[in-house]
Amino acid sequence: MSHLSLGLAGLGVVGAKTAELLMSQADIWQQKTGKKLTLTAVSARDRTKDRGIDLTGVDFEEDPVALAHRGDIDVVIELIGGSEGPARALVEAALASGKHVVTANKALIAHHGQELAKLAEQHGVQLFFEAAVAGGIPALKVLREGLAANHISRVTGILNGTCNYILTEMTQTGRDFGDVLAEAQAKGFAEADPSFDVDGVDAAHKLAILAALAYGEQIDFSSVNISGIRSITGTDIAYAGELGYVIKLLGIAERSGIRSVQPCLIAHNDQLAKIDGALNAVAFEAEPVQTVLTTGPGAGAGPTSSAVLADVLDIATGRGGLPFGRFVDTLGPSAHVPHDPEERRYYLRAMVPDRAGILSAITSILKDKDISVESMLQRGQSEDAPVALVMTLHPARADAVLAACDVLTASDFINGSVLALPILDRIERH
Amino acid sequence: MSHLSLGLAGLGVVGAKTAELLMSQADIWQQKTGKKLTLTAVSARDRTKDRGIDLTGVDFEEDPVALAHRGDIDVVIELIGGSEGPARALVEAALASGKHVVTANKALIAHHGQELAKLAEQHGVQLFFEAAVAGGIPALKVLREGLAANHISRVTGILNGTCNYILTEMTQTGRDFGDVLAEAQAKGFAEADPSFDVDGVDAAHKLAILAALAYGEQIDFSSVNISGIRSITGTDIAYAGELGYVIKLLGIAERSGIRSVQPCLIAHNDQLAKIDGALNAVAFEAEPVQTVLTTGPGAGAGPTSSAVLADVLDIATGRGGLPFGRFVDTLGPSAHVPHDPEERRYYLRAMVPDRAGILSAITSILKDKDISVESMLQRGQSEDAPVALVMTLHPARADAVLAACDVLTASDFINGSVLALPILDRIERH
Repeated sequence: MSHLSLGLAGLGVVGAKTAELLMSQADIWQQKTGKKLTLTAVSARDRTKDRGIDLTGVDFEEDPVALAHRGDIDVVIELIGGSEGPARALVEAALASGKHVVTANKALIAHHGQELAKLAEQHGVQLFFEAAVAGGIPALKVLREGLAANHISRVTGILNGTCNYILTEMTQTGRDFGDVLAEAQAKGFAEADPSFDVDGVDAAHKLAILAALAYGEQIDFSSVNISGIRSITGTDIAYAGELGYVIKLLGIAERSGIRSVQPCLIAHNDQLAKIDGALNAVAFEAEPVQTVLTTGPGAGAGPTSSAVLADVLDIATGRGGLPFGRFVDTLGPSAHVPHDPEERRYYLRAMVPDRAGILSAITSILKDKDISVESMLQRGQSEDAPVALVMTLHPARADAVLAACDVLTASDFINGSVLALPILDRIERH
Repeated sequence: MSHLSLGLAGLGVVGAKTAELLMSQADIWQQKTGKKLTLTAVSARDRTKDRGIDLTGVDFEEDPVALAHRGDIDVVIELIGGSEGPARALVEAALASGKHVVTANKALIAHHGQELAKLAEQHGVQLFFEAAVAGGIPALKVLREGLAANHISRVTGILNGTCNYILTEMTQTGRDFGDVLAEAQAKGFAEADPSFDVDGVDAAHKLAILAALAYGEQIDFSSVNISGIRSITGTDIAYAGELGYVIKLLGIAERSGIRSVQPCLIAHNDQLAKIDGALNAVAFEAEPVQTVLTTGPGAGAGPTSSAVLADVLDIATGRGGLPFGRFVDTLGPSAHVPHDPEERRYYLRAMVPDRAGILSAITSILKDKDISVESMLQRGQSEDAPVALVMTLHPARADAVLAACDVLTASDFINGSVLALPILDRIERH
């Protein structure tokens, strides 16, 4: 009977759940892989904390990097988090000393994935990170292996459960962003400092990883255009609904085009429009398969440990492969472009005083950028407060729309910033 | 540079597309696998038929089994179809002579998967059949590898695109089964003899394979309760819609329960209710991941060749594994039960004459089986023709409902058969 010895760093909720499953179901792992999996050592900040798991017989290392240097460990599981510091030091040391690495660390892979994959290649070991993208959904396996024979043209994802939960609640209850965020924080669905989630950074980490895998290119986190959901109001959601759309924070990576994370309007009967609450989803448009969509829970101890353990079982079974599906030296430069080159319809919202001449001033500014208005809605009436003026625009390029928004935002008759969101008429072609 | 030499049997639309992709994108396969993939020989019924592909330099074998005996072939791709005859002979011979096999043949695997997997084990070769289930969706890879660490409790699938297309058309246009089927046949979406699809046999093949993989048990095609969609009328769909449900042909496999393919009512806002047209979908309910759903095209040359090639690339990359995720000898007997043991609500429809006393006669028969009525609808009125009487029943066991239906169908006041469909209130728990 052959063995596989594991070291695990980071005993938060995901780490504790992973450790518990590794130990409690050893017989099942043996049945599936033909190997006896043993959790040999763990490392965490606080040795004494009660995590509800019995770690008797498992060594404890104060310094996570010590796991990388132990001769009795084959696979290091990194669940510390963060793109630098101990997580990076551990993964680098583990790969360099010939150990396989499984990590759930999206920031680490988005920023250093390439160097780490190169290190794994040089030392002939596996580096897997299924849990880094879309939680429990095996999205990377689907992309890298299940759709390996395809030419991917677009990847579209709902990649942050917190944002999707907030937008869903806003849509279903009509409440505003701040109100729903506060409730989500109280319930533990959102962090005390929510900026990583609601500003789109977390989704952008995942999108950068997906783009690299989909297009065989170097990871370039800095190429992702990021805007979050703080600027979306209940009014925007209501107007979008009236127009037949829902607002979702979407990560989009097109082969020779944008990599972006931004709120978008999608038709209410689109598959992705129906992904509600904290669920994640990733849709792959590809030839010859057409569109494959995967959905499931994007976070949480259970879903994340499912993905971490799938990687461990792949290693135990000898189902190896290159982290990005090709040798690092064959990855091309990212083919991203700074602005979305596709002409798209846009949703535009400005807060304006309710008086004559405003509409004409706005359409004149749009016309200067060759942008024409498709429809206009202005419901509320108020002599005192500004009201929302909502327009949909005929297909235009992102740079023209953004330039027009800048002029509008700077003009003295508009309160606050003008919001422009792309309308994606068809995410999926069936 | 190492090589992988392929033999392909069956040059229908899927075979021709697979051959074309193998040859035209050889450089991509080499980049991804590090191996040069060569299509060495093919076999088909008609050598001279124009398939729009150039097979110059590729050997032709009149007898597909000859592919198995050639010393210069590493992998046999079987795309002939059918559970017996040349397909079975080829796959058995190929495995027995130490060749890896990739097949899209659901009937072959549903009927002989176990013996074939055993043969693959004995000869140390791979047997993969991703394309046999849900076409372009990598559902088997998701289940066997992506969710390998999970305890699966239920698999629910829309597994036949023809049925889903017909039911979707009936729902969206209000037309009847025969009308939509005839149109689907004219468009080439349904076979001239549609029974394999509309009677649920094709979906049952796929369900039997999914159940074996999900529960680590022997494939038992005969354990699947099968009923197709011929008995569903436009009236049923309209009444179901009024009650908040859509009718889908679902394959369901529960760990210690039914394996069935039958039309079911599911809530209109359920994820699976939104899978329209010829799409397939498979939902896995599991611990610790919760629910993961995959959807995509379930048939067609492109999607199917995508799945076939993914298997070939797995073999080329050395991503092996056991066909059912475990050794054949460790597969347990199927834990299916003859009737669904879960108490469920049911939809009941009978065609009855429009006169007094009928309702009381029906409820009395139901009461004899301890079944109580939750709601009743009867819209039409006609003195000449029977009208539809629709009921929903409080939770009851399938055997009681079926027994009541038998009594009702045999009674002299009911025209034709009584239809009973389970109402699945929650396919997916989010």
